[in-house]
Amino acid sequence: MSAEVITIGDELLRGEIVDSNKALLSELLLRADLPVRFHVSVLDDPQDMADAFRRAAQRSAVVLVSGGLGPTRDDITLPALARCFGLSLQLHEPSLRAIRAFFRERGRPMAPSNEKQALLPEGATALPNPLGTAPGCMLRAGGAVFFCLPGVPRELAHMAEQQVLPRLPAPGGARGVLRSELLRTFGIGESSLEDELADLARGEGLSLGFRTSFPDNFLRPCARGASEAEAGERLAGLCRDIEARLGPLLYGRGDETMQVVVGRLLAAGGFTLALAESCTGGLLAERVSGVPGASAWFRGGAVAYANDAKRALLGVPDAVLRDCGAVSEPVALALALGARARFGADYGLATTGIGGPGGGAEGKPVGTVWVGFAGPQGARAARFHFAFDRQRHRVLTTQVALDWLRRELQGVPAPAPQLLKTFPPERVTPGTG
Amino acid sequence: MSAEVITIGDELLRGEIVDSNKALLSELLLRADLPVRFHVSVLDDPQDMADAFRRAAQRSAVVLVSGGLGPTRDDITLPALARCFGLSLQLHEPSLRAIRAFFRERGRPMAPSNEKQALLPEGATALPNPLGTAPGCMLRAGGAVFFCLPGVPRELAHMAEQQVLPRLPAPGGARGVLRSELLRTFGIGESSLEDELADLARGEGLSLGFRTSFPDNFLRPCARGASEAEAGERLAGLCRDIEARLGPLLYGRGDETMQVVVGRLLAAGGFTLALAESCTGGLLAERVSGVPGASAWFRGGAVAYANDAKRALLGVPDAVLRDCGAVSEPVALALALGARARFGADYGLATTGIGGPGGGAEGKPVGTVWVGFAGPQGARAARFHFAFDRQRHRVLTTQVALDWLRRELQGVPAPAPQLLKTFPPERVTPGTG
Repeated sequence: MSAEVITIGDELLRGEIVDSNKALLSELLLRADLPVRFHVSVLDDPQDMADAFRRAAQRSAVVLVSGGLGPTRDDITLPALARCFGLSLQLHEPSLRAIRAFFRERGRPMAPSNEKQALLPEGATALPNPLGTAPGCMLRAGGAVFFCLPGVPRELAHMAEQQVLPRLPAPGGARGVLRSELLRTFGIGESSLEDELADLARGEGLSLGFRTSFPDNFLRPCARGASEAEAGERLAGLCRDIEARLGPLLYGRGDETMQVVVGRLLAAGGFTLALAESCTGGLLAERVSGVPGASAWFRGGAVAYANDAKRALLGVPDAVLRDCGAVSEPVALALALGARARFGADYGLATTGIGGPGGGAEGKPVGTVWVGFAGPQGARAARFHFAFDRQRHRVLTTQVALDWLRRELQGVPAPAPQLLKTFPPERVTPGTG
Repeated sequence: MSAEVITIGDELLRGEIVDSNKALLSELLLRADLPVRFHVSVLDDPQDMADAFRRAAQRSAVVLVSGGLGPTRDDITLPALARCFGLSLQLHEPSLRAIRAFFRERGRPMAPSNEKQALLPEGATALPNPLGTAPGCMLRAGGAVFFCLPGVPRELAHMAEQQVLPRLPAPGGARGVLRSELLRTFGIGESSLEDELADLARGEGLSLGFRTSFPDNFLRPCARGASEAEAGERLAGLCRDIEARLGPLLYGRGDETMQVVVGRLLAAGGFTLALAESCTGGLLAERVSGVPGASAWFRGGAVAYANDAKRALLGVPDAVLRDCGAVSEPVALALALGARARFGADYGLATTGIGGPGGGAEGKPVGTVWVGFAGPQGARAARFHFAFDRQRHRVLTTQVALDWLRRELQGVPAPAPQLLKTFPPERVTPGTG
């Protein structure tokens, strides 16, 4: 039993937008144990759509379709689907009421063209869309089950989780409820993770997926059970096993980014944070300040690119800059201490390094980074050597710095130096095809 | 005559990565006047690949394939393509030498598995890949012309421009050479652009495409001619017409982001820049410092999130903060002046605003932003009101600030207030399907 994803829209085939809906829907199907064999995109063209629908019904048990549910003349997914399988379109009154309510609640007039969004193929089940005007629908036709969803990513993501996932058929005739969780790890490579956890998720109805999201690796444990309660219990057991195995390498769940976790820990302890950035150039501040409510615990940061700025803003001594160079342990320490003092914060984090492509030197090759940490118990610095490119060095450096603070606030050991100093723990060879 | 894009790889169908290659290749085909009708992705499975190749040859004149050219057992695109059309694989000696040289130059041993990357279908033309080990190839088979390219985006992008674009057939039997340019605009909506430029690109062999890349809008003028010289001349003429029409709304070409343009202008004038950020939280510094060579003209920045930080680091007077609030004209001015003075820079840019979702107040709704500008001739501030979300408010604010500095350095008028204050100039209604 395999699945297929069809996305619809001229803008996709003109290359105007990168189609992230396919990846989102594929991951959802994978969680439900439904392997995806085909991705197809077609124009807003009734004939091309009909061909794609027919072919999909022949070769796939489940077909997820996104796009073409809007109010404009181009939006013809449902008429094309209905005609392809010889079905009529019927007005779905509850959907029309929901569309009317959507406009009323926003105080906006409803165009007559929005009414057609409530026309569904006969026999289809409407799938409500609380974030937009286009309802989706589920339709059994041609031997397959089709799920039609809007192309707007935010609406699609919400409906995929809420409306599609619970309705997906279980593979191999297995029945019951599927529950899943996203676990976020940092500091361990993907194949090490697989080795480490290979013996878990062996029980019936359990599975464990892996996905790299640089610089993190994500885990996707899934559990199936006869009821919500059973699936939830199995999932919780699997998550506990993973947690016990990984310890502090596991830093968050679901949407919890590293900066969200750090922010929550700072807020809980009544602590504040300040930053001094050189090689990360503001990215650390940008990540931290992007957390809603960050103003409660984030004091601010200095991007001290020039040496003058390191001196004037953060009080790094001239002699240290001259004798040790900007990328050095004393400067990392002075920056972290300077940030903490100047902003009057409990914790200071600092970065200084050689991002590349230029700037490397004897003993300080491109990718050399010092991270400085200052807290109520004093200051430390650690040296890393990364082997990626300028942009990934920045991202990785900010994650290393935030992870250090997270571990400090959680009272767990700092990462073993060998783990991060050779990050990623597994060799990455240049892409070759 | 239409085109098709096939991407290959289990990781695509598991949703592990968002497939940006399709958009890149589609845009390339569009530039060559070859409309793309189908996107297809298949697993690393020989049967599924063969089905996709056969079907593509039936319905499309040009087929671009990416992925599956690597050295591992999964990489079977070329054997599958050859078998599908009854062709043998033949060792291509120049490609084998290029692969050997690739490893030798990097001082790395070459695995025996890399040798198979030089096996091409008989009759294929090898396409060199200077950035990786996998050569691509062009093959006429089944009535279509196939271009096989590696899946690594960097290698793919380079080869698409250098190897594929010049070899694409001209549509409708037209012959000659195609040249195109990317023009970047900021401060004008897409439909205003289309209206403004509707009468250009009407000549034979000329075309003009539009693409939104928030907060910019890009133009893609293309020209066809009998020779390189003729195509180039026509393209230059079209670009001149567009430039004359748009004036300073056009800020850059090709890869030139706003920060790259600003950096070049600063460097040319021997000027330096410093930043004071509140609502953009470090994003402005991150963008500016991401320009290679930025250390020559970027002094640094302060992310003054807390009011204390605005006072201590940038000298914003207490009374001003108390009486006017942090999101106000006097604070924007004081921040820009403070950045300029503290960092000893020629220019200071500052941002303070209410990014949302919370924080709005009577008279200062979410999306209210003040940008401060300080230079050798004094300081000014401008108020904007944006109606997007937190992340887009940040991006838009940084672009507005950089554009202001660009116009100042180029000696062109600042944007008309009504243009930006109602950004985007066209209404954006919520997505509906």
